Amino acid sequence: MNSRKVAIVGASGYSGEELVRLLLSHPYAELVAVTSRQYAGQTLAQIFPKFANHARAKELHFSEPKVELLDKQADIVFLALPHGVAAEFAVPLTKAGVQVIDLSADFRLRSEAVYMEFYAHEHPAPELLAHAVYGLPEINRKEIREASLVASPGCYPTSVLLPLIPLLKCGLVKSTSIIADCLSGVSGAGRKAEVDYLFVECNESVRPYGIPKHRHLSEIEQELSNAAGCDVRIQFSPHLVPINRGILTTIYVAPEKHFDDLAGMEKLNQQIATCYKESYGSEPFVRILEGKALPDTKNVVGTNFIEIAWRLDIRTGRLILLSAEDNLIKGASGQAVQSMNIMCGWPETSGLC
Amino acid sequence: MNSRKVAIVGASGYSGEELVRLLLSHPYAELVAVTSRQYAGQTLAQIFPKFANHARAKELHFSEPKVELLDKQADIVFLALPHGVAAEFAVPLTKAGVQVIDLSADFRLRSEAVYMEFYAHEHPAPELLAHAVYGLPEINRKEIREASLVASPGCYPTSVLLPLIPLLKCGLVKSTSIIADCLSGVSGAGRKAEVDYLFVECNESVRPYGIPKHRHLSEIEQELSNAAGCDVRIQFSPHLVPINRGILTTIYVAPEKHFDDLAGMEKLNQQIATCYKESYGSEPFVRILEGKALPDTKNVVGTNFIEIAWRLDIRTGRLILLSAEDNLIKGASGQAVQSMNIMCGWPETSGLC
Amino acid sequence: MNSRKVAIVGASGYSGEELVRLLLSHPYAELVAVTSRQYAGQTLAQIFPKFANHARAKELHFSEPKVELLDKQADIVFLALPHGVAAEFAVPLTKAGVQVIDLSADFRLRSEAVYMEFYAHEHPAPELLAHAVYGLPEINRKEIREASLVASPGCYPTSVLLPLIPLLKCGLVKSTSIIADCLSGVSGAGRKAEVDYLFVECNESVRPYGIPKHRHLSEIEQELSNAAGCDVRIQFSPHLVPINRGILTTIYVAPEKHFDDLAGMEKLNQQIATCYKESYGSEPFVRILEGKALPDTKNVVGTNFIEIAWRLDIRTGRLILLSAEDNLIKGASGQAVQSMNIMCGWPETSGLC
Amino acid sequence: MNSRKVAIVGASGYSGEELVRLLLSHPYAELVAVTSRQYAGQTLAQIFPKFANHARAKELHFSEPKVELLDKQADIVFLALPHGVAAEFAVPLTKAGVQVIDLSADFRLRSEAVYMEFYAHEHPAPELLAHAVYGLPEINRKEIREASLVASPGCYPTSVLLPLIPLLKCGLVKSTSIIADCLSGVSGAGRKAEVDYLFVECNESVRPYGIPKHRHLSEIEQELSNAAGCDVRIQFSPHLVPINRGILTTIYVAPEKHFDDLAGMEKLNQQIATCYKESYGSEPFVRILEGKALPDTKNVVGTNFIEIAWRLDIRTGRLILLSAEDNLIKGASGQAVQSMNIMCGWPETSGLC
Repeated sequence: MNSRKVAIVGASGYSGEELVRLLLSHPYAELVAVTSRQYAGQTLAQIFPKFANHARAKELHFSEPKVELLDKQADIVFLALPHGVAAEFAVPLTKAGVQVIDLSADFRLRSEAVYMEFYAHEHPAPELLAHAVYGLPEINRKEIREASLVASPGCYPTSVLLPLIPLLKCGLVKSTSIIADCLSGVSGAGRKAEVDYLFVECNESVRPYGIPKHRHLSEIEQELSNAAGCDVRIQFSPHLVPINRGILTTIYVAPEKHFDDLAGMEKLNQQIATCYKESYGSEPFVRILEGKALPDTKNVVGTNFIEIAWRLDIRTGRLILLSAEDNLIKGASGQAVQSMNIMCGWPETSGLC
Repeated sequence: MNSRKVAIVGASGYSGEELVRLLLSHPYAELVAVTSRQYAGQTLAQIFPKFANHARAKELHFSEPKVELLDKQADIVFLALPHGVAAEFAVPLTKAGVQVIDLSADFRLRSEAVYMEFYAHEHPAPELLAHAVYGLPEINRKEIREASLVASPGCYPTSVLLPLIPLLKCGLVKSTSIIADCLSGVSGAGRKAEVDYLFVECNESVRPYGIPKHRHLSEIEQELSNAAGCDVRIQFSPHLVPINRGILTTIYVAPEKHFDDLAGMEKLNQQIATCYKESYGSEPFVRILEGKALPDTKNVVGTNFIEIAWRLDIRTGRLILLSAEDNLIKGASGQAVQSMNIMCGWPETSGLC
Repeated sequence: MNSRKVAIVGASGYSGEELVRLLLSHPYAELVAVTSRQYAGQTLAQIFPKFANHARAKELHFSEPKVELLDKQADIVFLALPHGVAAEFAVPLTKAGVQVIDLSADFRLRSEAVYMEFYAHEHPAPELLAHAVYGLPEINRKEIREASLVASPGCYPTSVLLPLIPLLKCGLVKSTSIIADCLSGVSGAGRKAEVDYLFVECNESVRPYGIPKHRHLSEIEQELSNAAGCDVRIQFSPHLVPINRGILTTIYVAPEKHFDDLAGMEKLNQQIATCYKESYGSEPFVRILEGKALPDTKNVVGTNFIEIAWRLDIRTGRLILLSAEDNLIKGASGQAVQSMNIMCGWPETSGLC
Repeated sequence: MNSRKVAIVGASGYSGEELVRLLLSHPYAELVAVTSRQYAGQTLAQIFPKFANHARAKELHFSEPKVELLDKQADIVFLALPHGVAAEFAVPLTKAGVQVIDLSADFRLRSEAVYMEFYAHEHPAPELLAHAVYGLPEINRKEIREASLVASPGCYPTSVLLPLIPLLKCGLVKSTSIIADCLSGVSGAGRKAEVDYLFVECNESVRPYGIPKHRHLSEIEQELSNAAGCDVRIQFSPHLVPINRGILTTIYVAPEKHFDDLAGMEKLNQQIATCYKESYGSEPFVRILEGKALPDTKNVVGTNFIEIAWRLDIRTGRLILLSAEDNLIKGASGQAVQSMNIMCGWPETSGLC
């Protein structure tokens, strides 16, 4: 395989750190630059002692983020920056021919107006929106392969979209009245020094937030609308739970066809199983659970896997979808690496197992 | 105030232990007997060192549970036993004129058939079902006052019923398509030596269980049906989260009247506020949150309070109710003590603040 | 009992919040003022929703801390401020005849030089050092009764001093080569927005810090020297563990008299038991564990108790002392209230059980 | 490299599960059998869904443990069994020429009498004691290379021995009056359904246990005695802390040569640094921390690394050693795989990075 030089801009947050981990061990990517205003001048090994066993981590120093250096050093640049800031790097880097994988929200939406509505400022580079590919490999693999700018999905959206999209495409469920109730570990809030995310404030606490209009709603609805072929509005309720990593999502949805007996239910069960099998049967990172098993964050944390299960309720006629993922891996950095693998023509699981 | 002698049958589980704590400090109740097959012969202070500062805890020995002693020792008996077993004590004790407050599920349902459907064995004492009062003080205070047998509600049902019942009674919400998504701390599983509840299995894990037909569904639907005046079926999804105590419940419900503009939403907001104020304005243990505050288990743990908040979503037309309680107190032992206070004519907050 | 008006300066940290909780429920103290620069103008109930059931919490507004108001409003003022700042209030308040209970380190040391050595700035009010009483009720009850300025002990010192002082006074252990290895919950770090205390940084992490010269060492050595009647130097190693509250301390000490057989060990065991019984037998908040029981933070959290146990090791000739306390209660606010009760002539357990 | 067939007897506990994880991804070892009475007949993927992405995990079924099959299937057998039981397999397997790596305590001690003293039953196979090699690669690499039976060290012993042995061998510290104060995550207690290890009993709890004579003391003293060339007795105090994995050890030790000024301290610092560098400078899994860094379990969890740091205290003249490891990896299964790599002539880090 050809190797490529990669850089990470904003490598000091949780997603950035996870990217560092994945890229240090990647068989084909060579990590050549990591930037951080805060840590500039120090080595990776100094800031993240747990990577100290990698020779590279002892040599590589954090640098100030400078576009004019990055475009010479790297073939591919990952942006692990706040929204609004990412675009400042994406514009000149893509212009310079560097492939960009952006983990922020800056290029996930197709519509400037929706961006403005949900992020409360004008889009910093609307001209790029049409070129960006929403980096959900299971859905957009072909587009990712050709992309120069990948907008890697948010953690919540990944956990909601992967269970729903196949069923919408197969016409098995209605696109109206979908509810997604999500539980996230605290790393989802980032490595920010805020009282709300102190140990004592989060431990022994479970709480909702951002109800009813969290920012991730915008990209979830956009992608569900794409899948359904019509405008989709959903209910989305995030909650914070005291785990480091992981998202557990419970989705309530109405089957397209009503079932009112066991035979009808069993038939629908088969159709769902078939739909998932056809959609994800050969996906390396989607695990459709069978039998009595239900998703559990502890079974996916530290991996790029998403677990998906479903239950039909004969008493209510409703379908319940359940998913679990590691918010920093499948929900962020692992998925970004998966996109890189696709863009580079490497085996899609490289560095991810 | 007149004091009364009280006993606890099955005082070694988490609810039993919490009852012990509350009753040791109760100003009017005198704890005269605690039973436990496992700990018979040992003092409360030996088994629960944290109560050792109570003189009573050093004197009081666990005894074998024997009806023929209990009915002589105590005026009121709390049963903190598994379902099926509680009835064995409730029958002779109520016959002997002892008031019984049962924390198990044995007397919560009015219908033998529903009991059989959800608990998979015949009801052990169907003749008592008609006499038992469902012990939700905010709803059934009058009936509790006269009761000889109180069926204290389950932890999940309390967290679902208290937010919903007033809105159903006021006709503000539809009784169809209600969804309750609940997150419970691990003490809800009881002090049982099972691998599933080991620290390592629960810590850093979030998982659903009992979907779609958990036992508590039966009493939730019964009580919602009473409030709505018609048969109610709901979706109920419990999840296990790594906290010791607390339940956080998110309920999705459709307003009776559709709103499609801000004015309509604001009007409904007012109606809900008024409904809650009229229903719970003078309730000592219900806290309706205002402004931006949302329920958080850490604000109610260790207390008999339930926090309730709501949000209207103009994008979906849906109403979201949120509640937080301590599963062992408002969801179990505290609520049982609240019922006792009512039955005895004591101030309802006695021993609970 | 006569009631007294009390105020808290700096009521927004964890110790301050715990003081609020204790004083809101105190039978004789009337909380008349709480200050916080950050929250000035808001009510207690707004900032701490869990106190909202107290009528007082709905009326009482946080105010800016102003000495000239405090000395008119309150008979007793608690200072829950950083070291260095507390003295700014203590000087004018004591001058104005207000009794002051200081939870900071400002008045715990008798020596300006030691203060300078450990706190790295000159003492802001050395003239008060001679008047302050070290507020460990079990040791200095008589002095506290007459005090106008109480320096309430640190959380670690309380957990180290209470097990050791009686044995040193009885001459049962050597004052040389003492080692105290301590484990603290994260609330000990205060409600500070620092990355080190974020949930994700503390959860699933155990780490030492401040080794070998933590600030609390200074007051531990001062008080041990007082008890031993000679200069004592000890080894003190704090560690951070992922619990909200609690300190577990393990102390290694050499018995004064060597024992080398079971009979000698048993004799020493008796002497230690007797020494503790005579010292703490009637103490309301010290629990000497017997039999096989060992201290566990979960048995004291939420209370003003300290649990103490000991073990002799016939293989090494060493004595091991173990203690557990709630760092915010017996280690801070509860102990401060205990001192207030003594100063006011109220039952020492008032508001603490 | 030549590959080898390996089996795990007792693969359902935490160490066994971790061994499965490591061996499924090992480049040269082929996992051919896993036994478990409880899970016999089910596949690895069914019991441990998180391994389901490994093709091997879907094929490999747990079997009943039978020596007569194992010795035909495997070149190397790992025993992850309780003490006493492991010997039943080790005897016939070694006789049959199979290499055995035992994770239990059965072959760690050289003395039957010490085994009897600490494990309270006669040694089941004393004739093998002389042949077993204590599997601490950093210390006994040469012996492991030739071993037919490796007794892989306990988790606590690894964390105590690796910091101490080089200093004892270099004569830098005294072998008397050593104290090891250790904090372990709950997985150290195994996957046993006992109330003491339930989530609710461990969460928000820190507690000592097994003081002063825990079983691991025996192998610690044996190996320290070997290193010191004389009989060593130490103080060893284990504590349980609410983390899944990790051991943090604090060791108090007296330098051989007294230092009483900064120059003397600095010189000793240099000697210690040199001693560790010479002993561990080329060790792949030992990380000697420099500068201000102190060990933190979160920096080693999930890896085979041990972090070591030290501090000299000029006030007490004492040396404090600190170490952190993952109890299930460097403290158990990772170390066992490290031994296997040595025995097989594979790169020592194979499958461990």
